[in-house]
Amino acid sequence: MTAFAELWQEIAPIGRVGRGYRRFALTEPELVLRDWFRNQAARRDMPVTDDGNGNIFAWWGDPWAAGAVLTGSHFDSVPAGGGYDGPLGIVSAFLAVDLLRERGHEPRRPLAVAAFVEEEGGRFGLPCLGSRLLTGAIDPDRAAALTDRDGITFGEALGGTPAGLLPGLTNRISALVELHIEQGRELTVPVGVASAIWPHGRWRFDFTGHGDHAGTTRMADRRDPMLTFAYTVLAANKEARLAGAHATIARVEAEPNATNAIPSIVRGWLDARAADTGTLDNLVEAVIKRATERAGRDGTEVAVANESLSAEVAFDTSLAARIATLLGGVPILPTGAGHDAGVLATHVPTAMLFVRNPTGISHSPAEHAEDADCAAGVEALAAVLGDLT
Amino acid sequence: MTAFAELWQEIAPIGRVGRGYRRFALTEPELVLRDWFRNQAARRDMPVTDDGNGNIFAWWGDPWAAGAVLTGSHFDSVPAGGGYDGPLGIVSAFLAVDLLRERGHEPRRPLAVAAFVEEEGGRFGLPCLGSRLLTGAIDPDRAAALTDRDGITFGEALGGTPAGLLPGLTNRISALVELHIEQGRELTVPVGVASAIWPHGRWRFDFTGHGDHAGTTRMADRRDPMLTFAYTVLAANKEARLAGAHATIARVEAEPNATNAIPSIVRGWLDARAADTGTLDNLVEAVIKRATERAGRDGTEVAVANESLSAEVAFDTSLAARIATLLGGVPILPTGAGHDAGVLATHVPTAMLFVRNPTGISHSPAEHAEDADCAAGVEALAAVLGDLT
Repeated sequence: MTAFAELWQEIAPIGRVGRGYRRFALTEPELVLRDWFRNQAARRDMPVTDDGNGNIFAWWGDPWAAGAVLTGSHFDSVPAGGGYDGPLGIVSAFLAVDLLRERGHEPRRPLAVAAFVEEEGGRFGLPCLGSRLLTGAIDPDRAAALTDRDGITFGEALGGTPAGLLPGLTNRISALVELHIEQGRELTVPVGVASAIWPHGRWRFDFTGHGDHAGTTRMADRRDPMLTFAYTVLAANKEARLAGAHATIARVEAEPNATNAIPSIVRGWLDARAADTGTLDNLVEAVIKRATERAGRDGTEVAVANESLSAEVAFDTSLAARIATLLGGVPILPTGAGHDAGVLATHVPTAMLFVRNPTGISHSPAEHAEDADCAAGVEALAAVLGDLT
Repeated sequence: MTAFAELWQEIAPIGRVGRGYRRFALTEPELVLRDWFRNQAARRDMPVTDDGNGNIFAWWGDPWAAGAVLTGSHFDSVPAGGGYDGPLGIVSAFLAVDLLRERGHEPRRPLAVAAFVEEEGGRFGLPCLGSRLLTGAIDPDRAAALTDRDGITFGEALGGTPAGLLPGLTNRISALVELHIEQGRELTVPVGVASAIWPHGRWRFDFTGHGDHAGTTRMADRRDPMLTFAYTVLAANKEARLAGAHATIARVEAEPNATNAIPSIVRGWLDARAADTGTLDNLVEAVIKRATERAGRDGTEVAVANESLSAEVAFDTSLAARIATLLGGVPILPTGAGHDAGVLATHVPTAMLFVRNPTGISHSPAEHAEDADCAAGVEALAAVLGDLT
C-alpha cells in the first residue's frame, strides 16, 4: 500500500453517511478529524497553534515566525459531499512534509499545514468563514452571530467570539499553496495549477404568497409562491446558459411544506458564477428581473438578499508560472469553485494545485480521484514547498 | 361573552405557534386537547370511550347502543394551520348538546361527540387515518407502520397496533353529522350543507439526477432534478387550470439541499382534486406525462407513487335535503376538501354542515370565521341533532 493510500484510509470512515460524507464544521465528525490532525502533527513533532478563529496550524519551524509558507485545506464537507474536497489538501500536506524530510530538505522559513474552518459554508451559510476571519474580511461579531439550522451560533460552536484578523498577516505569511481535487473535467493530466477563481456569490430569494388550502382554493384565487420559485429555477438555468455562466438553485425551503397547504413562503438560494464580474452582475440582474416579473403575474412578492459575494480571484501569475515550470510544464487552468486560497490571494502570494478528477463530479458521494494521481499530487506539492521554503 | 366565544377561548392558546397552529396528532398540543375533551365530557356527565384506533367518543346515552348518531370532527392541524379546521366541529358539538339539554330534548337514541385522530395526515402522511381505521378502509398493521418525519410509527404513538374496523359498524351508527368551517368562498350565508366531496389524492414524485458541484459543473453536463421538479410545478398548475380542477405541489424535499451542490434527488408531492374521477385521472396522467417528457430533456428520471386516493363522495341526498329544509332552505354545496365524514359516508348516512369562511382561507393562520356565524352553526347543529335523535 502506498503512503497516500495508508494515510487516506485512516480518515475514510469519519463522517461517512451512506456513500457520502457529512462533515459540518465543529460537529462531531469534523472534531474527530481535528483530533486526527493533532495526532498527525504530534507524530511529526509539529507543534499546533490555533488562530482563535477555528483555523489550526501544524508547524515545521517556529510558529508565525516571519515569512511562513502555508499549505493545507479544510475538513468540512457539504451535506452528502465527497471525501476529497478539502481533506485531500491536508493529507497531502502532511505527506509532502514526510517526503521533504526523507529527502533531507532543511527549510529556510517556517512551513505550516493548515486546516481552515467552515470552508463550504455548509453549517453557518458563509463559505470560507475561517479564512475570511483570518484576513479580516468579515467582522468577528458578525461571524459569531451566524447561526446553523438548529439556531446554534458560530460563536457558541467555537466557544467564544473569533479573534479576527491575524496581526502582521502579510509579514508573517510569505505564500499559501493549497492542493485540491479538481471539480470539473478540464484537467486531463494528474496535476495542474490554478490561474483564477470565477467571481461568485449566493443570493437568497424569499417568495411570499398567501398560505391557503390546496384542495378548496380556486386556481384563480391563489397567490402561490411555489409557482414563482419554480419559474425562477428555470429562468436562472436559461439565463446562465445564455451567458456562458453557471447558475443553480439547489436549496429550497417551503413553509409550511405540507402536501395540502399552499405555501405562505418559499425560499430558494441562487448560486451564480461567471468568468468575469460584469457577466455575473448581468446574470443575477436578469434572474431577479424575471423572478420579479413572474411574481407580478402570480400575485406573490419576491425579496432578494445577497448572502455572500466573492470577487474574481487571479492567483499570483509569477508564482503559478514558476510552479508550472517546476512541475515540468503542467497546465494552468481557472475554476468555478471558491477556496480559502481565493480569500488569502488578495493579501499574500497564493497558488493552488489541482489533482485530476476523472468524472469532474464534486460535492457528491461520487467524487473521486485515483490513488496514483493523489500520489502525484503529493510529489508535486513537496516539490513546490521545497522550492518555497 | 357568548357561550361559543367562552368555550372557544379555552382551546385558543393550545398548540399556537406564532399566529398559526401546529397540532399534530398524538403530540403534546393534541394530547392536551384530548384532555380538554375528556374534561368537557365529564362536566356534562358524558362517558368517554375509545375505539382502539385513536378516535374518542363522549356519549349522551349508552355507548355504542344500536343506531347512535355521531357528530364531531378532529383536533389535529396541518403545520402552521388555522384554529377552526377540525376543532370547530368538536366545540360546536358540545355546545349543541348543551342547547338540546337546555331545551329539554330527550334523545331516542345515543348521541356521541367524536374526535377523530390524524385527519390531516400532517404527521403520518395519510389523511383521515382514524376514520379509515374505524371503517376498515386501511389494514391496522399498515396503519401501525406509517412513520412521521422523526421515524416514529403510528403504532408507537398510539401505544400499540390499532383495533381496526368497529364491529357492527352500520348497525351501531345510524348517522354522522360533521360541522366544519367552509374552506372556500362559495358560502355567502352563515351555514350551508355539503352535497359532495371531490375525488382527490396525493402523488409523490421522485426526481432523480446527478449530485454535483454547483460552481464547476458545466450547464451542458448537468442532470439537475430541480429543473424537472420546477417544470412539473408549473405544468401541474397549468393542467389544473385547463381541466377546471385543482392541482398543487406545496411540499418539496431536496437532497442534499445545499446551496453549492446540484441535488441528487428532489421529491415533490402533488395534491390533485377534481369534480369527478375522470377529470382527476386525466389531470394526474397529464402531469405525469409532462414531468416524464421534461425528465427526458433534463437527463433525469421521475418515479411517481400514489400515496392516497379518496374516491368521490356523494353525501346522503335525502339527509342533506332534510337538513337544508329543517334549517330554512340553506344552500347545498360541494367541497374540494377531504373529511372524516367522507370516509364514513360510504358506510352510514352522513351529512356535513359548513360555517361561512369570509375569506375562504384555510390551512393557514389567516383562517377565520365570525363568532356570530359559529353561534349560528351551533344552533343549526343542535336543530339537526335534535331531529335525528
